[in-house]
Amino acid sequence: MQINRTVDYGVRVMIHLAGMPVGTRSICPDLAAAADVPPSFMSKILRRLVNARLINSGRGIGGGFELARPASQITLLDVVQAIEGPICLNICLQSATMCNRSSWCAAHLVWADAQRKLEQVLGAAVLDKLATQSQTMRSSLHGR
Amino acid sequence: MQINRTVDYGVRVMIHLAGMPVGTRSICPDLAAAADVPPSFMSKILRRLVNARLINSGRGIGGGFELARPASQITLLDVVQAIEGPICLNICLQSATMCNRSSWCAAHLVWADAQRKLEQVLGAAVLDKLATQSQTMRSSLHGR
Repeated sequence: MQINRTVDYGVRVMIHLAGMPVGTRSICPDLAAAADVPPSFMSKILRRLVNARLINSGRGIGGGFELARPASQITLLDVVQAIEGPICLNICLQSATMCNRSSWCAAHLVWADAQRKLEQVLGAAVLDKLATQSQTMRSSLHGR
Repeated sequence: MQINRTVDYGVRVMIHLAGMPVGTRSICPDLAAAADVPPSFMSKILRRLVNARLINSGRGIGGGFELARPASQITLLDVVQAIEGPICLNICLQSATMCNRSSWCAAHLVWADAQRKLEQVLGAAVLDKLATQSQTMRSSLHGR
C-alpha cells in the first residue's frame, strides 16, 4: 500500500513547476536536479504528465516544460492519477464484477471508505499552495 | 497504491473467524474455502496472523484456528499491519532520515495526512461489526 517512486517523483516535479514564475519553462535536466529525481526516470514521468495535459512541452530556444493550467487548478490527485491511473486501493474497487463477494462483503465498504478519504486528502492538496508552503518552509530552514 | 492480495485474503479470513461462534475453531482448508482464498496462500497468511498474535492455532482433534482475542478488540488496521507491517504510504514516512527533503517538502505533509486518514478508517473498522454486517448483507441477498 505504498505509492511507487514514479508518483513521488512526479509530485515533486509538479510542485517545483508550480513554484516557478508564470510563463517560464524548465528543461528536463534542471527539473531532475530541482526535484531530486534520477534522470533515468524523468522522461517517463514528463511524458505521462504531458499525456495527461498537466504540463506543456516547448521545443527550441526558451523551450522546456511548464504547467498546462494555473497551479491553483491542479491537485495532487490529478498528478497521482496522471502517473498511475485512477486510485484503486483494492482490486474489488476496480469494478462491480472484479470480486463476487463485493455485494455483501463488509471489508469492501471499508476499502471504499478508505479510498474516498485518500482521494479527499489528495484532491484538497492544490499545487500553488504546496509550492508556496515548500518555499516558505525551505526559506525558514535556511534562515535559521 | 494498492493493497496486496495477501492483505485482502487475510482480512477475509479474519472476518470469517470473527463470525464463527466463540470457542469454535476452523481448519486451514475450510478457512480457504470460506474466504475464497487460494490454498497456496493460506499457510503464509495464517502464519503471519499467528505470529502477530491475532489468531491461535490448536493441533489434534478439535484443532484449527480461532481469534486470539475478542473480535471487538481487533481492527482491520491490526490485520493489515500483521500481514504487511506498518502502513507506509510513501518512503518519506518511514523515518525522518529516509528523504532529505522531508523537513521542507509540502508533499511530505500531504502523504502523512493521507496515511493518518487511512489508518483512522482501518482502525475504526472492528472485526465483530464487520462480521455481523457481512452476515446481514449476505442473508438479505439470499432472502431476496
